[in-house]
Amino acid sequence: MATIVECVPIFSEGRRDWVIDELLGAVRSVAGVRVLEVEKDPDHNRTVVAFAGAPEPVLEAAFRVVRRAADLIDLDQHEGAHPRIGAADVVPFVPVAGVSLADCAELARRLGRRLGEELGLPVYLYGKAATRPERRELPDIRRGEYEGLKVAIASDPARAPDFGPARLGPAGATVVGARLPLIAYNINLQTDDVAVAKTIARKVRESAGGLPAVRAIGLSLAGTGQVQVSLNLTDYRRTGLLTAFRAVSDEAASPGVEVAGSHVVGLLPAEALAEVVAETLRSPNFAADRILERALLVRAEEEPS
Amino acid sequence: MATIVECVPIFSEGRRDWVIDELLGAVRSVAGVRVLEVEKDPDHNRTVVAFAGAPEPVLEAAFRVVRRAADLIDLDQHEGAHPRIGAADVVPFVPVAGVSLADCAELARRLGRRLGEELGLPVYLYGKAATRPERRELPDIRRGEYEGLKVAIASDPARAPDFGPARLGPAGATVVGARLPLIAYNINLQTDDVAVAKTIARKVRESAGGLPAVRAIGLSLAGTGQVQVSLNLTDYRRTGLLTAFRAVSDEAASPGVEVAGSHVVGLLPAEALAEVVAETLRSPNFAADRILERALLVRAEEEPS
Repeated sequence: MATIVECVPIFSEGRRDWVIDELLGAVRSVAGVRVLEVEKDPDHNRTVVAFAGAPEPVLEAAFRVVRRAADLIDLDQHEGAHPRIGAADVVPFVPVAGVSLADCAELARRLGRRLGEELGLPVYLYGKAATRPERRELPDIRRGEYEGLKVAIASDPARAPDFGPARLGPAGATVVGARLPLIAYNINLQTDDVAVAKTIARKVRESAGGLPAVRAIGLSLAGTGQVQVSLNLTDYRRTGLLTAFRAVSDEAASPGVEVAGSHVVGLLPAEALAEVVAETLRSPNFAADRILERALLVRAEEEPS
Repeated sequence: MATIVECVPIFSEGRRDWVIDELLGAVRSVAGVRVLEVEKDPDHNRTVVAFAGAPEPVLEAAFRVVRRAADLIDLDQHEGAHPRIGAADVVPFVPVAGVSLADCAELARRLGRRLGEELGLPVYLYGKAATRPERRELPDIRRGEYEGLKVAIASDPARAPDFGPARLGPAGATVVGARLPLIAYNINLQTDDVAVAKTIARKVRESAGGLPAVRAIGLSLAGTGQVQVSLNLTDYRRTGLLTAFRAVSDEAASPGVEVAGSHVVGLLPAEALAEVVAETLRSPNFAADRILERALLVRAEEEPS
C-alpha cells in the first residue's frame, strides 16, 4: 500500500504571478512531490496550492514553500477580502492513502517545530494537531487577522504561538495542522447587496444551527455586481455539495435573488462527486468506485509495479 | 498532460478459469498496466477484460494478451451463443484522459501491424481505426463468424484483412480498433406497462431522431412491477447521463409515470460525472481534473519519480 499525503497550503498572494511561480518552484524542488493544483484568486488575493507524495518529501516541500513565501510576501503590503494572518497562512496535511489523520498531525508538529526554530516564524497548530481545544478552528486562530494579531501575540498569553517567537514580522504567522479533506465551495448570487450573502451565510452555517459541518461567510465581489456565499464543507458525508447548493438557492429565493453560479475551489474527493450524481440521477447505490480513474488509482496502490 | 488509455478486449473463453488466469497474467506482466474489471460469461463462453495505463504499456499488454489467447484458445473447439471470429475477438482502445480518439486509432493500427507481422494473425481495423466505411461496425466484420470467415477470407477480396495473412488458423482473426467510452445506463420506471418503456425508448434513441449518440430499448423487469429504459450512451459529450435522465423523466411524466431510479453499469470516466455536477451545481467550469484521485493518478503517470 502506497502512503500518500496531500498538503494544501494557502498563501496570501493571488496577484503577482512571479511570486506564485517561485512558490511552485520551491514545492517542485523536492523529488517525488507532485503539484496537483494551483488555484489563484486575485479577488481574495490568495492562492491555494495542492501537492502530494510520500510523507517525508511532502514535509520537506512544505518547509521549503513556507520559507519562500515568508521571503516574498509582506503582510504589511497585503490587501484582500479573506481573513489571513500570514504569508503562508495555513498549511494543512490531509491523509490520502496508507496514512492516518494522526500521522498527518505528527507531520504538522514536525513542520511547525522547523518553521519556528529554523525560520523564526510564529506557528499555531490547528485541527487534529491542535494543542488546545480553542485552537482547533482556523477562525479562532485568525481572530483580529495579521493586524490584530501583531499586537495580541505579544500582549495576550492566550495568543502565544505553539512554536517560534511571540512576535510578528512582515511574514506574519503560519497555522499548521491536519484535517480530513475539506471542500471550499463558493456560490455567487445575482445581486450587489452583500447583506443578502451575509444573511444567507448566517442561516446555513452550523454554528447558527444551520447545516452540519458547514462554515459560511458572505462577501462582496467588487466590480462584478455579485455577492458570494463562501462555504467550507468540513465533512462532505454530513453535508455535501448538492445539499449546500440547494440550501443557499432556497434562502436566496425568498428575497428573489438568483444563483449566478457556483465554484468548487481546489480538489475534491471522488466520493463527494459521487454523492451529487447519486442524488441527481436517483441512483442511491452509485459510488466513487465506479469512476474509472479512481479504480485505476486503487489498483496502482494495490499492485505497485 | 498525462495520457491514460483503456483497453477492453473480448476473448472467446468464458469457462476455463485457468485460461482466463493466463490471460490476466499476460496483461499484468507489463509494468504500469492495471486490470480494472474481468467479466466472465460462461453462457456466451467469452470474457471481457478491462485494463488501463499509459499508452505504450497498454499497447504492449494488448499484444501479449492477444498472443497468449491465440496460443490457448482454439476456435475449432469453441461453442458459444455470441458472434465471434477469433480467440481474441475484438480489442478496442478507449481514450480516458489526455488522449484523443485519433491517438487510440493510431495505437490500434500499431497493434494490428504487430499482430499480423509477428504472430501471423489476420487483423481487421474497426471503429475510428477502420480503413473503409463498411468496417466501422463489428457485426459487419463478424459476418459469417469464424466458420464462415474461414472460407470467405481466402475467396472474397472484400474480406481481406488489414494486416496479416488472408487465411484463418485455429486462433481465428482479431478485430482491433478505437472507440469512445460507452456508458450503459438503465432507468427504471414505476409502472408495469412495458409499452411505456418501449415508447420512451423509441422517442429518445438517435435512430428515430431523438438524442444524439443514444441507443435505447424498453424492457419489462419481471416481478418488480417496474419497466426499464435501457440506454447505451456512445458519446457522453454529445448526450450525457443527466440529459438522458431528464429526457426519459420528461417523457415518462406525460403518461404520469415516475422514475423509480437509475443505474450505471460498469465503470465510467470521471468526465461523464463531472458533466452532471457542472450542470446540477451551475458550475460550467467544473471539470474532471478537480477530482483528487484523478489528479493524483494523472500526475503520477506524467512525472514518475
